[in-house]
Parts: sequence; C-alpha cells; structure tokens
Amino acid sequence: MTTKRVVADLIVTGCGQLVTLAKSDGTPRVRSALKDLAIIADGALAVAGGRLISVGPRDVVLATTGTSAQTNHVDVGGAVVMPGLVDCHTHTVFADYRLDEYEWRVAGTPYAEIAARGGGIAKSVGHVRAASEAELLSRTRQRVHSAIRHGTTTIEIKSGYGLSLEHELKQLRVVRTLRDELPITVVATFLGAHAIPKEMAADREGYVQAVVHDMIPRVAAEGLAEFNDVFCEVGAFSREETERILRSGQRAGLKARIHADELTDTGGAELAASLGAVSADHLKKTNDNGIDRMAKAGVFGVLLPGTSFGLPSLELAPARKMVDAGMRLAIATDFNPGSSTSESMPMMTSIACSHMRLSPAEALSMATYNPAFVLGREGDVGSLEVGKRADFLVLDCRDYREVANHFGINPVARVFVAGREWVAA
Amino acid sequence: MTTKRVVADLIVTGCGQLVTLAKSDGTPRVRSALKDLAIIADGALAVAGGRLISVGPRDVVLATTGTSAQTNHVDVGGAVVMPGLVDCHTHTVFADYRLDEYEWRVAGTPYAEIAARGGGIAKSVGHVRAASEAELLSRTRQRVHSAIRHGTTTIEIKSGYGLSLEHELKQLRVVRTLRDELPITVVATFLGAHAIPKEMAADREGYVQAVVHDMIPRVAAEGLAEFNDVFCEVGAFSREETERILRSGQRAGLKARIHADELTDTGGAELAASLGAVSADHLKKTNDNGIDRMAKAGVFGVLLPGTSFGLPSLELAPARKMVDAGMRLAIATDFNPGSSTSESMPMMTSIACSHMRLSPAEALSMATYNPAFVLGREGDVGSLEVGKRADFLVLDCRDYREVANHFGINPVARVFVAGREWVAA
Repeated sequence: MTTKRVVADLIVTGCGQLVTLAKSDGTPRVRSALKDLAIIADGALAVAGGRLISVGPRDVVLATTGTSAQTNHVDVGGAVVMPGLVDCHTHTVFADYRLDEYEWRVAGTPYAEIAARGGGIAKSVGHVRAASEAELLSRTRQRVHSAIRHGTTTIEIKSGYGLSLEHELKQLRVVRTLRDELPITVVATFLGAHAIPKEMAADREGYVQAVVHDMIPRVAAEGLAEFNDVFCEVGAFSREETERILRSGQRAGLKARIHADELTDTGGAELAASLGAVSADHLKKTNDNGIDRMAKAGVFGVLLPGTSFGLPSLELAPARKMVDAGMRLAIATDFNPGSSTSESMPMMTSIACSHMRLSPAEALSMATYNPAFVLGREGDVGSLEVGKRADFLVLDCRDYREVANHFGINPVARVFVAGREWVAA
Repeated sequence: MTTKRVVADLIVTGCGQLVTLAKSDGTPRVRSALKDLAIIADGALAVAGGRLISVGPRDVVLATTGTSAQTNHVDVGGAVVMPGLVDCHTHTVFADYRLDEYEWRVAGTPYAEIAARGGGIAKSVGHVRAASEAELLSRTRQRVHSAIRHGTTTIEIKSGYGLSLEHELKQLRVVRTLRDELPITVVATFLGAHAIPKEMAADREGYVQAVVHDMIPRVAAEGLAEFNDVFCEVGAFSREETERILRSGQRAGLKARIHADELTDTGGAELAASLGAVSADHLKKTNDNGIDRMAKAGVFGVLLPGTSFGLPSLELAPARKMVDAGMRLAIATDFNPGSSTSESMPMMTSIACSHMRLSPAEALSMATYNPAFVLGREGDVGSLEVGKRADFLVLDCRDYREVANHFGINPVARVFVAGREWVAA
C-alpha cells in the first residue's frame, strides 16, 4: 500500500518519452554520461507549489500522488516531455541587428574592414547608448518571450554594449526588470570588459581601471549581476588585463567567466582553469593543453554553435575532443545582434549535432542539465527530478532526437514554468 | 482625378517595406536583377476575388481602390510584407524521419555503411509502403501546414518513396488530395526514378522499363503530376537511363527535372541543358561547363542549402559562380526524412546567405519570384503584382534582411493565401 502524500496542483500524463535527465549523484554529465538522458517511457509528473513532487512511470506517479478537485490534469498524448532549456550565454539586451554588417560579411568583407566601417561591437554600443532604458526593455522583453516560446526557461543575459558605468547599469537594470517580471529564471552577467570603448581608445589602462574601480564595485553593491565576464582576445583584453578584472570581480563576489580563444588562442582556457572560473566560452582555438587543464579543473566549456553558423567559415570548437577529454560542456546561443542572431536553443542543438558531431542526447544534456551548473542553478533547474522547479516542455514530436534533427523550426508545443503554462501577455 | 474602379475585399496598409519583387519585363531574375526586390516604402495592397488589384504607395492605393462596407482593412503597423514563399523542391510525402541514421551520420558513419544497414532512401521506401494512404495524408498534411506557417504558399511535392506503381500512385494521390483541400498552390512531381527498389536490384533494366511503360503513362493519364524527375547519380540512375526516362515523360506531357551532380559530377547539368529540362537540382559537383550550358539554355539551377546543412561536410553548390555566370537560380528546402529535415524556407535563406554567400536580397528572389518560373506559375505567384494571386506574408520584422539574418526562428507572423488569412483548422 502506498500512502498518498502531497496533493498535486498539476498532473501530466501521456509523456511518450519523459526525458528526465535525472542523475543520482547530482554531478555534471561528462563523457558517456552525456548520452544517458534517463528517459521514462509512458511517463508522468506531478507538481505542487511550482515544484516537482513526483516523476516516473505513469502508474507509479498516479498511485503515489494525491489529487483534489483543483488538480489540473493534462494528457499530452504521447509527446516528448523534457526539462526547459537552459541558455547560459546570451547578449540579449541590444537595440538593433547589425544588418548592413551581415550583408558585408556574407559578401566576404574581412572583419578588419567591417570594424573600420564602424561595425562590430562598437556599432551595437552606439545603438545601446542611444536607446532609453524603456526602449531596451521593450525590445529585450520581446526577444526573451521568443526564447521562451523556443523552450528556454532559464536564461543568462550579459551587459557589454554600454561600456560606461551609466550604460552598463542601464543594461543590467533591464535584465533585473525582466528577472522580476518573468516567471522564468533570469541570471545577469556583467561584461563591462567586452571591448575598449572608442572614447577610451587612447587610454585602455584608464578603461580597465574604470571597470575594476567604478563598475565592478557598483554592480556588486547593487546586486545587479552574479557573474563577471571578460572578452579575452587580441584587440579586446589581454590575458593580464582579463586576470586583473576577473580577480577584482571575484573579490567583490562575482563569479568569473571568460570569452576565451574565440578568434585566437590567447591561453584563455588555461587562464580560466588557473582562476577557478566557472566557465570559458567559445573555445574555437583552444589547444590540447587548455582542454586538459579545463577538464582537470572542472571548468565548464560553453560551446556556441550559432556563432560558428553565422560566419561563412563555419569554424567550430573541437567538441568531440573535449567530450573525450572529460570536459564539462554546455551549449548556448550567444544570442547577439552581430555574430549569432538566434535565440533558439533547439537550433543550436541542430548545428551542434550536424557540425560538431555531437549526438542528439549529448546536445540535450549540454542544453539542459549541464548549463544549470554553469549558472549555479543545478539544484533548481536542468532536469525533471523531485524538488526541482517544474520547468518543462511538451514537444511536437515523439522522439527527442527530432529536436536536433528537424532543424530550423520550433519543436516546442507548450512551455510550463514552475508548473504553470506560459502564455505571453 | 482618379476613377475608383474595382471594390476591394481587403486593403492592407502600414507595410513599412512592401517587398513586391515586381519586374516589368516578366522574365526571371538573373545576376544584378536578383538584388532588386522592388521595395515600396509605406506600401499598401488591395485584393478582390483573391487577386491583387492594386499594389503601391499607400496614398496611391487608397486613392485608386474602391471600398464598401464589406471591405476588410488591415494595418500591419510598419511590418515587412512580402510574397508567399515558393518551395519548388520537396519530398514531403514520407512516413518517419530516419533518426537512427541521423545519429549514425553525425557520428561519422560513411554513407555506404548506412546503406548497408538498410538506411537511406530504401528505409523511407519501406516506411511509405507500410503506411496507408490515410496515414500518409495525415502526416503530410501536418508538414504542409507547418510549411505554410513558415510562409510557403506554393509547394512542389515529389513521389519517389513508393518505387512501384501502387505506392507511387498512393503518394501522388496524397499530393492531389492536399492540392484539392488546401488554398495554397500544390504542384506534383513524379519521381519513380529515385532509386532502384530492393526487389529489382538484380533487374535494373526491368525497373526502368516499368517506370517508362507502366508508371509514366498511368501518372500522365490520371493527371497526377506535372513534372517528371530522375535522380541521376552513381548508384541511382545513369545519364543514359535518366535521358530515356525524361524523354518518355516529355512525350507524355510531363516536364523534365533532374536531381543532378549532387554527390558526383555525372554530367547531369549538361544533360538538363540538352534535354530542355526545366531545372537541374542540387548541383554541388557541377563543373564550369555544366554551369555555362545551363546558363545558355535557361535551365534553372535549384540550390538546396538544407541538404548541405544536414551533412557534416557542409558541401555547397558554387552559388556565386552560378550567379556570375548568369544562371537562373532558385532555392528550395528539399524537405525529406533523411538529408534535409526542414520545411522552413526562411531557414534555407539563412544557410544560403551565411554559407553560399548570397545576399539576403538574392536569396529572397530565389525563394519567391524565380521558383515560380520553375513551377510554371510565374503568371500567378512569386511577386506582388496586379493580377497575381494575393499570396503574401506579414513578417515579424521591419527589414527584409532579418528573414535570413535572424536564423532558426520563424519570421512569419501572418500568412495570406488568395487574400484570406491562413488559420489551420
């Protein structure tokens, strides 16, 4: 005899594949564990107070879950049900896409010339500085709503198009407003060190000082970010500057992340390992030593397939080598107005499978369970396990592999956040 | 003074960019003409009886269009409005995606081994033969509905997973049923010569004879297809077999198309030119002579970026060379259960721009105006010109370049077919 305990607000049945991603030891998935999605056939789940109270085979869930007249029953008719997607690297607070630059780029214009024409990050900084906080909020809200429709229920958003105390704070306040108004989990990252702003070109040390002495303390004091990120790259910030900025953030309580080895191997991966950074992201040019160091240090590698897709070269991070080395890995959109113009996490899994040669299961692990660790939300989201938030997706298919295989479309039919169905206002 | 003539059923205003693709001489767009989308700022259009009766600047359209109490007024608030997309190459009548094969492929399994495991076209033939006509219809209908949501208002659909009289006719009847029930334009192509079926492996001449003497006459007699297509490829049909099959189709009134030079340069492009085929499709391996011959003969090259995306090699047709040679070009999805698993024409323009280095304007010309010629519907669809069907899209953006740039999402907010808004039943 089973005692019926908590009364459920919601019971979902008919999950042809209930992709739970449960893992008994609660550690990140690496190597072969990436392929184990802990799928339950004919599964069900029960929710109370926004949290999962039961996840398992239909009969077990029904037998052990209490119901009342208020319990909402949803039968999804054999569809795939999976955790909400966790997008752990985005630049969603921007004003406009850089469409002129897109045309130049596909025509083969070298990046140096695009930069000389005022393109690149500098262009987006101009747009963001010119926009009011209300305008930025309105545009960012639309984009986050679209991300939710595509299954994202946890999203990280960086600043980095302000590049001054005033405009970096403006971007981070937009993130805070969305965090407060939306039911999904929104996590903020300060990226004041995204580029040296034009007006400081002759005084880069002055800008680094401003980041360290003005911006980081203010961001930390106002609680506007949990993470501190630096674009460590030739033409952006040196390894030494990156280290100073990240250490100063760590002292202020901001966890470190790095845009590393995207265009050149600057030793960003090794730096991430030596600093105890949470992640190093991009990693297209990372060498074997960097991979080894990150694997040993347990630093997450965040792969950004959309950035590769957006450039004709389609240069990709060596994902298979990283999996084989036992690195902790996640996939994110890098959604931004220039190099990765997509908020769709399902699209990222498609690129990751077709071109980084990940399996659909590996890609889903890297899009749900693992990035929850990157954001420090592993106790809360990323898998369907009792006690976690009831963030889940009902897909328009009966085999999870379609998420990656059926590309360029939105496979998400319904989105539930903390047990309530998401319907945009 | 302007005389108000016809009374409109529908007037659409507020088109921030009205992308008409009008061309005064009514010929296909080649070379620089591909970039001229004939965009009207603050445009409007008027519809009566499902056809466009006025297209132009708002003031002109309003001044010259009659209205009544029944006229429906739609203001799209500054959005882009463009012609419905024309997808001129699909294999939409299939049963299931080949998901096992997808996993093998991304793991690097060579195609020969996948074929030895029963994968490839043969696998889909097994699925289609096992499915009833009603099942096939139901699945194909869902896919076409999704294509419409992504902006496709004219679609070509091929048989080719039946490979026997009975099952080829079954596929083509599914296409006919959809043609009759849907408001969009559905065009059928017979592709009995897609592969030699397993049971005829020892008698390929016998299968070619069956295609020529049994299938083509029956398909033509029942009016089940307008086009006859052959997969001309090593392992499929030889150049000589292709020519016999296409000439026999031409005699029966079926216009010729060829799957040409996809995996090997078999001279398919030259054959298309010498036969007066409407198009040669794929063309990844076409040589310079083939390009020149097609350009001179006015044979359309149909580029299939989705097929390239789906394979890790990302091998693409030499699109820029083809544009420069003055070839007539179109883009299509090649939507099928194995190599190109997407029904989204916007996604195809994204791949075409990022990886074939087409400009967003070129890609849109190849996705609307030009493919209407491939399907023989240039008098009817592909541009917004007076007299054509009122098939148009309202996009979720204010610059047409976002269709390609903002990838992996659906940019289409509303679809109008023959002047009526499409809402799936």
